[in-house]
Amino acid sequence: MFRTAELGRKVSKADFERQEEPLRIELLELQQRLRDLDMPVILVFAGVEGAGKSESMNLLNAWLDPRWIVTRAYGPPSDEERERPEYWRFWRDLPPQGRIGQFLSSWYSRPFMAYATGTIDEGSFDEEMNRVIAFEKTLADDGALILKFWMHLSKKAQKARLKALEKSTLESWRVTKQDWRHWEMYDSFMRAAERLLARTSTGEARWIIVEGEDHRYRSLTVLCTLRDALTHHLERHAQRRAVSQSANPGTSSGHVDPVLPTVIGGLPTVLDTLDMTQALPKKDYRAALSAEQGRLAVLHRKARAKGVSTVLVFEGWDAAGKGGAVRRLTHALDARHVQVIPIASPTDEERAHHYLWRFWRQLGRAGRVTVFDRSWYGRVLVERVEAFAEEDEWRRAYAEIRDFEDQLVQAGIVLCKFWLHITKDEQLSRFKAREGSPFKSWKLTEEDWRNREKWDAYTQAINEMVERTSTNYAPWTLVEANDKRSARVKVVKTVADRMEAVLGG
Amino acid sequence: MFRTAELGRKVSKADFERQEEPLRIELLELQQRLRDLDMPVILVFAGVEGAGKSESMNLLNAWLDPRWIVTRAYGPPSDEERERPEYWRFWRDLPPQGRIGQFLSSWYSRPFMAYATGTIDEGSFDEEMNRVIAFEKTLADDGALILKFWMHLSKKAQKARLKALEKSTLESWRVTKQDWRHWEMYDSFMRAAERLLARTSTGEARWIIVEGEDHRYRSLTVLCTLRDALTHHLERHAQRRAVSQSANPGTSSGHVDPVLPTVIGGLPTVLDTLDMTQALPKKDYRAALSAEQGRLAVLHRKARAKGVSTVLVFEGWDAAGKGGAVRRLTHALDARHVQVIPIASPTDEERAHHYLWRFWRQLGRAGRVTVFDRSWYGRVLVERVEAFAEEDEWRRAYAEIRDFEDQLVQAGIVLCKFWLHITKDEQLSRFKAREGSPFKSWKLTEEDWRNREKWDAYTQAINEMVERTSTNYAPWTLVEANDKRSARVKVVKTVADRMEAVLGG
Repeated sequence: MFRTAELGRKVSKADFERQEEPLRIELLELQQRLRDLDMPVILVFAGVEGAGKSESMNLLNAWLDPRWIVTRAYGPPSDEERERPEYWRFWRDLPPQGRIGQFLSSWYSRPFMAYATGTIDEGSFDEEMNRVIAFEKTLADDGALILKFWMHLSKKAQKARLKALEKSTLESWRVTKQDWRHWEMYDSFMRAAERLLARTSTGEARWIIVEGEDHRYRSLTVLCTLRDALTHHLERHAQRRAVSQSANPGTSSGHVDPVLPTVIGGLPTVLDTLDMTQALPKKDYRAALSAEQGRLAVLHRKARAKGVSTVLVFEGWDAAGKGGAVRRLTHALDARHVQVIPIASPTDEERAHHYLWRFWRQLGRAGRVTVFDRSWYGRVLVERVEAFAEEDEWRRAYAEIRDFEDQLVQAGIVLCKFWLHITKDEQLSRFKAREGSPFKSWKLTEEDWRNREKWDAYTQAINEMVERTSTNYAPWTLVEANDKRSARVKVVKTVADRMEAVLGG
Repeated sequence: MFRTAELGRKVSKADFERQEEPLRIELLELQQRLRDLDMPVILVFAGVEGAGKSESMNLLNAWLDPRWIVTRAYGPPSDEERERPEYWRFWRDLPPQGRIGQFLSSWYSRPFMAYATGTIDEGSFDEEMNRVIAFEKTLADDGALILKFWMHLSKKAQKARLKALEKSTLESWRVTKQDWRHWEMYDSFMRAAERLLARTSTGEARWIIVEGEDHRYRSLTVLCTLRDALTHHLERHAQRRAVSQSANPGTSSGHVDPVLPTVIGGLPTVLDTLDMTQALPKKDYRAALSAEQGRLAVLHRKARAKGVSTVLVFEGWDAAGKGGAVRRLTHALDARHVQVIPIASPTDEERAHHYLWRFWRQLGRAGRVTVFDRSWYGRVLVERVEAFAEEDEWRRAYAEIRDFEDQLVQAGIVLCKFWLHITKDEQLSRFKAREGSPFKSWKLTEEDWRNREKWDAYTQAINEMVERTSTNYAPWTLVEANDKRSARVKVVKTVADRMEAVLGG
């Protein structure tokens, strides 16, 4: 795989200087055009030590406007990072739209080292690479241009390079004992690299193998590749926008779940399977709620001690009682370790990232409970129904959400998702009660009435959401919420049950 | 001090219920009004264990709209927090405008415990309290309403309360052995509390001592105090706005530095003391730069190993060569541990906080170098000259900045601040050169020409900035930048010198 990167290609100083000025101008122009567009550029630099990864990143900073470039490199994770799913650190560093992010020792680094040094086997490595593919696909589907440069040196060239670096006053620090140890393992590193490149070169995020021996050749290769890809991507972006304006469906390159049959008026959806008549008498309610809260309090302390985090998602019809249920729940928890995150309109920083970014950034530290009052499911509910997201976008969100939740659960997080269901009649009577109550009327907005008119469209969306995102690791809990008392007990009990299952009784 | 909080005051259930509904309505209305205003509310809960701090916070969450309340509590700092100045964690948690932030175990907690248990003496405690006062003043000057509730219980009442909690299934976890140990130290805690309250009750951030024994009395006290303070504050806010629109000076309650004499045309400013004729021949430049970069590279590795961070501030005239100087500097550093932060317009999240918030959030972890390309000095430069900030605001910024930088330096950070100075003629010829260069023309904007027209106003602002913020712990380095080569060498050398002074040779 690397033979074409060991040809000893060189660019003369004169050739380089001749090409430099026009290339810099083109890149600067492209960067300026990029700044106005709703897409980021993500560059990954990986490869052989000494093959010019950081040098290429420095060059980019020097030739382009560094103010719109974000450079990220990763050492061992901090404790705040260790306490979240591994990709939290990458999500929080993603460049916003209009900017270029360049990544060194990125999401490839840990699995690559583990595989090259024999800590994990092929199967585990491939699984990790699948996560990488899903991650890059998620970003690419959102419009990101992703380019990955694998900087290569032959074994001989690497030795020479490390020796030369060691001799330089300014750069000798770059060479560590570990570099030499890795050099001795050159062949197993190359085998691992081949597998990595083969597995993760996708249409959306391709690898470019760059011969790293001659710094001028290498620099021109990286920068010309970037120029061409950026030019092409900006064109495609303009086209795609034109296409999407003419509302042409089926242009999605993303993962598309099989289409569900449309909900036919009168025929049951998953919500119709609920028994909405149940009621819990006030007396029984107090005893049951208090018992479940007591259980939850004990489990919460246990989770704190073990560093197990909990993420709770509350979705439901307007006036279904999300707020009340959340309060009954948090009442049993230690306020210092709970955070309720209300999801309203995104801020402009959030809007400039993939829609999942704002949820990643809110994940709490070990042992914490994070309650989302509305959540990432807005993508397939309100954004779908109100057409804030294009069909393409909300359709691929199902897979993105499944992957996101998989990462939460794999990181040991207890995840519960609640849909609080009420009937249309019950909603009406609650709206009217709110109108009449001086200290609840602020809760009722014009929007609530408008949403109500779209009851059927929401029903369809909810049905599909439950179908597509109720996984064995992160099932939905549908809560019959016409009766607030039984709903609240069910919520608290469900959380306690799930925590118990993870923590032990 | 606490005698009035040991009167055994009680509110009957009937009385409480009679007052509940109107009070809730008032609070909800006030909260809704607050949401549209450019000020946050900051509530601090402190006091005796068992006196109802978390309960009060829960009640606020229950009575108000919890979506606009941020609840924060603090355990031991994470490593990311430990690697920054202590107040970083508080700054990052501050509520944005329009929201209420309630804080438990806040900035008072560590110094209070240290003083109460005898770990630090009165003098150190008072110094820490001065930091608190400055912090709260900074926020209050920016419009924040700050209320601090000290929840009190007599020694006897605390004992009874802890016993009662221990008996409750749901809340027994709240009582730890430490609570009992602290109870035994009740008297020294109270002595410490008296000193804390006396020192930090200011006009801008007053303490309200609340008798915590009866939960209804305590709740009504907290909520009525909040209602009254909020009502008063919203009124004052409206008035102040009316006053500031009629451009009435001298309404500042903030710290105002003595007024400097106006710079009279022709008379020298601090910038005129610079020798702008120096020049470094190309040959000497290469050698000198390379030597300083080598020194810096070695020191940077040492700083990494010791976890010493560096913060570099670059300010200067347009086209003074900030970017070039920054690149010469970063060239000697390990790209993985350097971040260049370009300061452009704030995002909406940044705009919704105190202007220093966006700089606090960018502080890097231990051993990192953070380079600010433009900085918090924008407040007293462009915001002053362009009247983006009111005179009040930029005048008090001098003190705020001195305090901010003091915190950086006290946290062991190496801080260098550069003003890159060029003459007006030199700027003109650089602008013209940029216009002519195809790959530098993007650097030149209409704004640059407009700024140039305000040269004298900027000169005045720069002069005052240097005067007021060149402290012994954070002096300005004025760089004669008509000659780019000597300027770059001076920058790299200055950083190396400062690091050497902190790290040893």
